[in-house]
Amino acid sequence: MPQPDHIVKVPPLPDPEALDEATKKYFALCEEKLGIVPYVLRAYTANLDKLRNFSNFYTTLMLDEEKCGLTKLEREMISVVVASANHCYYCLVAHGQAVRQLSGDSQLGEMMVMDYRVAELDRRQRAMLDFSWKLTITPHDISDDDRQGLRDAGFTDQDIFDICDTAAFFNYTNRVAHGIGMMPNPEYHGMNR
Amino acid sequence: MPQPDHIVKVPPLPDPEALDEATKKYFALCEEKLGIVPYVLRAYTANLDKLRNFSNFYTTLMLDEEKCGLTKLEREMISVVVASANHCYYCLVAHGQAVRQLSGDSQLGEMMVMDYRVAELDRRQRAMLDFSWKLTITPHDISDDDRQGLRDAGFTDQDIFDICDTAAFFNYTNRVAHGIGMMPNPEYHGMNR
Amino acid sequence: MPQPDHIVKVPPLPDPEALDEATKKYFALCEEKLGIVPYVLRAYTANLDKLRNFSNFYTTLMLDEEKCGLTKLEREMISVVVASANHCYYCLVAHGQAVRQLSGDSQLGEMMVMDYRVAELDRRQRAMLDFSWKLTITPHDISDDDRQGLRDAGFTDQDIFDICDTAAFFNYTNRVAHGIGMMPNPEYHGMNR
Amino acid sequence: MPQPDHIVKVPPLPDPEALDEATKKYFALCEEKLGIVPYVLRAYTANLDKLRNFSNFYTTLMLDEEKCGLTKLEREMISVVVASANHCYYCLVAHGQAVRQLSGDSQLGEMMVMDYRVAELDRRQRAMLDFSWKLTITPHDISDDDRQGLRDAGFTDQDIFDICDTAAFFNYTNRVAHGIGMMPNPEYHGMNR
Amino acid sequence: MPQPDHIVKVPPLPDPEALDEATKKYFALCEEKLGIVPYVLRAYTANLDKLRNFSNFYTTLMLDEEKCGLTKLEREMISVVVASANHCYYCLVAHGQAVRQLSGDSQLGEMMVMDYRVAELDRRQRAMLDFSWKLTITPHDISDDDRQGLRDAGFTDQDIFDICDTAAFFNYTNRVAHGIGMMPNPEYHGMNR
Amino acid sequence: MPQPDHIVKVPPLPDPEALDEATKKYFALCEEKLGIVPYVLRAYTANLDKLRNFSNFYTTLMLDEEKCGLTKLEREMISVVVASANHCYYCLVAHGQAVRQLSGDSQLGEMMVMDYRVAELDRRQRAMLDFSWKLTITPHDISDDDRQGLRDAGFTDQDIFDICDTAAFFNYTNRVAHGIGMMPNPEYHGMNR
Repeated sequence: MPQPDHIVKVPPLPDPEALDEATKKYFALCEEKLGIVPYVLRAYTANLDKLRNFSNFYTTLMLDEEKCGLTKLEREMISVVVASANHCYYCLVAHGQAVRQLSGDSQLGEMMVMDYRVAELDRRQRAMLDFSWKLTITPHDISDDDRQGLRDAGFTDQDIFDICDTAAFFNYTNRVAHGIGMMPNPEYHGMNR
Repeated sequence: MPQPDHIVKVPPLPDPEALDEATKKYFALCEEKLGIVPYVLRAYTANLDKLRNFSNFYTTLMLDEEKCGLTKLEREMISVVVASANHCYYCLVAHGQAVRQLSGDSQLGEMMVMDYRVAELDRRQRAMLDFSWKLTITPHDISDDDRQGLRDAGFTDQDIFDICDTAAFFNYTNRVAHGIGMMPNPEYHGMNR
Repeated sequence: MPQPDHIVKVPPLPDPEALDEATKKYFALCEEKLGIVPYVLRAYTANLDKLRNFSNFYTTLMLDEEKCGLTKLEREMISVVVASANHCYYCLVAHGQAVRQLSGDSQLGEMMVMDYRVAELDRRQRAMLDFSWKLTITPHDISDDDRQGLRDAGFTDQDIFDICDTAAFFNYTNRVAHGIGMMPNPEYHGMNR
Repeated sequence: MPQPDHIVKVPPLPDPEALDEATKKYFALCEEKLGIVPYVLRAYTANLDKLRNFSNFYTTLMLDEEKCGLTKLEREMISVVVASANHCYYCLVAHGQAVRQLSGDSQLGEMMVMDYRVAELDRRQRAMLDFSWKLTITPHDISDDDRQGLRDAGFTDQDIFDICDTAAFFNYTNRVAHGIGMMPNPEYHGMNR
Repeated sequence: MPQPDHIVKVPPLPDPEALDEATKKYFALCEEKLGIVPYVLRAYTANLDKLRNFSNFYTTLMLDEEKCGLTKLEREMISVVVASANHCYYCLVAHGQAVRQLSGDSQLGEMMVMDYRVAELDRRQRAMLDFSWKLTITPHDISDDDRQGLRDAGFTDQDIFDICDTAAFFNYTNRVAHGIGMMPNPEYHGMNR
Repeated sequence: MPQPDHIVKVPPLPDPEALDEATKKYFALCEEKLGIVPYVLRAYTANLDKLRNFSNFYTTLMLDEEKCGLTKLEREMISVVVASANHCYYCLVAHGQAVRQLSGDSQLGEMMVMDYRVAELDRRQRAMLDFSWKLTITPHDISDDDRQGLRDAGFTDQDIFDICDTAAFFNYTNRVAHGIGMMPNPEYHGMNR
């Protein structure tokens, strides 16, 4: 597995061949399931503790199906809308693809990337995305009224926690990506068009 | 351990007495070491998977002493400056206290909270905080010049990853805190004045 | 030619069959050359004087090859970067496709849409896009220094006029699109991927 | 007709005497009707195709009396309010004069230039200007609610198109003026005080 | 002296005839010297202590000729540029007139109101206005570099204090004017055109 | 009384021993009453006319108990909230202490400094602080609706004047402090914790 020219600007990454067995196994599993090892995981090989923490955090947040009242698609929609506000190339490419895949609607993916407000969404999803945009842009303006707005649109208080957690997390990843100059796997571009 | 009046606005939290043994043990350890169970940990008891992920993520990011080239104090300074940009009460109170404690300088804590630019810092720390502020406020404007500025101030490329990771992470926690209406433990206020 | 469900929110559009012969002929030519009648042209059928003016303005600005020192691709890159700053769905879809087509590089199109700063551009094109972004976001901060920056990157004073004209024009179209709720032809999405 | 010292910073302009007959005739007509040749027209002599397009576009947009439901004064009020948001000297001077002339109220012109919110306007005109300001400053926040607000204030859907078109157009001209460093004819200052 | 229709929205103002003798005398002096009683002074009759404080503060700041190294015109230029950033109708009208009067250049007054960056100023005055604009818009970004920039342009450290004091003060008056809905005397409009 | 290392970056301050008798007496009174001479007063010794004007202005604004319908604590709360928006170290330290002292609630002081929105305030005080924040950040957006909101929360029109005056004044002091690089007396930090 040769190193691509540009995964990150910093930090220097170890040779993939030199990684420990557990990480190699994890990456093999990614390749098997996704067809690729997402570059974000490659980026964290600079610190394997951070790789493990990121991976666990991400898996619960985005893939859990038992405890989270949001669909996987909804969580991906949030991630793309946050990345749109932050102009984050990595997340727009990677999660835009996820929205196309999970929704089977390539235009929905484009709308989340470019301007989610043009999408014809039900009240629930629109409220979820408006909240996520506001939490991204002006977090200190979020108030009880905003939380009540989510309840009025059908969300439970546990759902609101998950919306906050998801929108907040991509404010983390967007800044890591901008900060270290991280690029997405080129394979995403052609998928699910 | 009675539930305080106000830890979070959402989600509803389970009775601390009803938590599983592992969590109770973890919280007992917190009380022993810190004198308190930080409310952020209480907040995540709404989802114990998320509690474990958050705790692991946080521990590596902020407490690791082997792989991270930033001092604990420097990481805390970043966290407070990010929270200052985001006007996050929780993190300003909790991490402002940490800066006072780790630096032994209560005014330094206040400066990080209120306006880090007034502090008399060496070039390295000033560059680190300017970068963190910019990554918080206008993440998409970070460029190679900004990374080079950190190198010129003495940071390695691995350090830059850690600065990005730290500044980015508190953009996550600040938004969780604003989103769910999380308040800090009152004990922080009186410590290290 | 049946009316699509959603071209614009306002104004009401006349039946395409009821348009005058000149307009029908123009639209037939569009279909022949582009495979579609761009919805922006359909939108302006609400006022045929405005349609003619828009069309003439656009043709000179974007298609002229004699007097303009910018390539067609460069002008399209400007249009997408301006639309990215303004989060304009119509222009991002339509002109993003144009960038893909003219460059033969689908990733370049995505970069212009999402974050032009990640593209590996030569100094000339990077300066052109930085200027266009700034003219879009903070027009009153443009100064002699910015014009000199374009000269230093290789542009003539006539080129600078054309860069200004192009960037400024998409600040017009983006606002028309947002203002009247204009949607792009769905065909753009699949082209040149 | 000697060239004034400062019409534009870029591009270089041809000698007015060397212009073609059609342009000379057009400018003679301007002098006859307006007393001046507006410098914006002089600026576009750098490219006579662009001059013609601009002139036609402008004439329909601002002077048409058949198809447009807005008065000429209302269109000028929009132009000045947009220019106020963009701090555009050229348009504030030139169109501020037009508001003074068309309204016969010099203070109204000053209010449009400085802060339109202090003017005692009827609901219709206030709604029109609030919409134009918002379309200028945060175009992607325009929603169905904003369009409905214009309807509630008495505008037709065709009028809304014209409001959008007018406000959007001055976002074009303001950016051309800032971009090329265009100055207004000094004669405007003394008129209609 | 009848009360004009609109001086302020709040607070209610006492009948000018019912004012104490000292205030009446002061206003008579204003009329004699300026031809008007500036409405800002009328506004402060709601609290005569505040009137006296404001008047004293203003007189030293703007009229002192012994201790202040800035000309009266320069101080007025600062006041208009600050008001331009804050879109304050009262100060733009009143101090725009002062710039016209003191400079004998009506266009200079308009430039300060609309976009000071288009004025052909010497380095000293340009630096003074750039600093004042920045102190108005992003006060916490002012740094030693900005103060050094003023020194490099020829100002003493005492002058810098006066520039700060002047620019800061009009951030006060602009907010009072916006807050209480204060309008300027109509006489200003026609003066010094 | 030795000169502290850092009161201001500019202007140069006279030796306190060389001040005139009236000023020495005033400072002795400050020491007696407050335990310190606030550095802001020391800063104005660069111009004793300005010192006297500032002192008189401040005394009426913040200490008057006859004519002002706001409590001293409320005025201090406004001052800290304005300083929080402006990230002004001097005022956050000095007036944060005043809020702690006057309220007897150290956490209330911290909330005003960090994020006033988390405080459990009655409707009156919350409305007062929301208005003050808005007047600070976007003064030209204040409208009749905002003034009516204050009336609805229980304020008289005279109170609204005083709220505006107070919030506006700290937009002055914050900019003076940022502009001249003024630091607060270190004694404030430990008081009323």
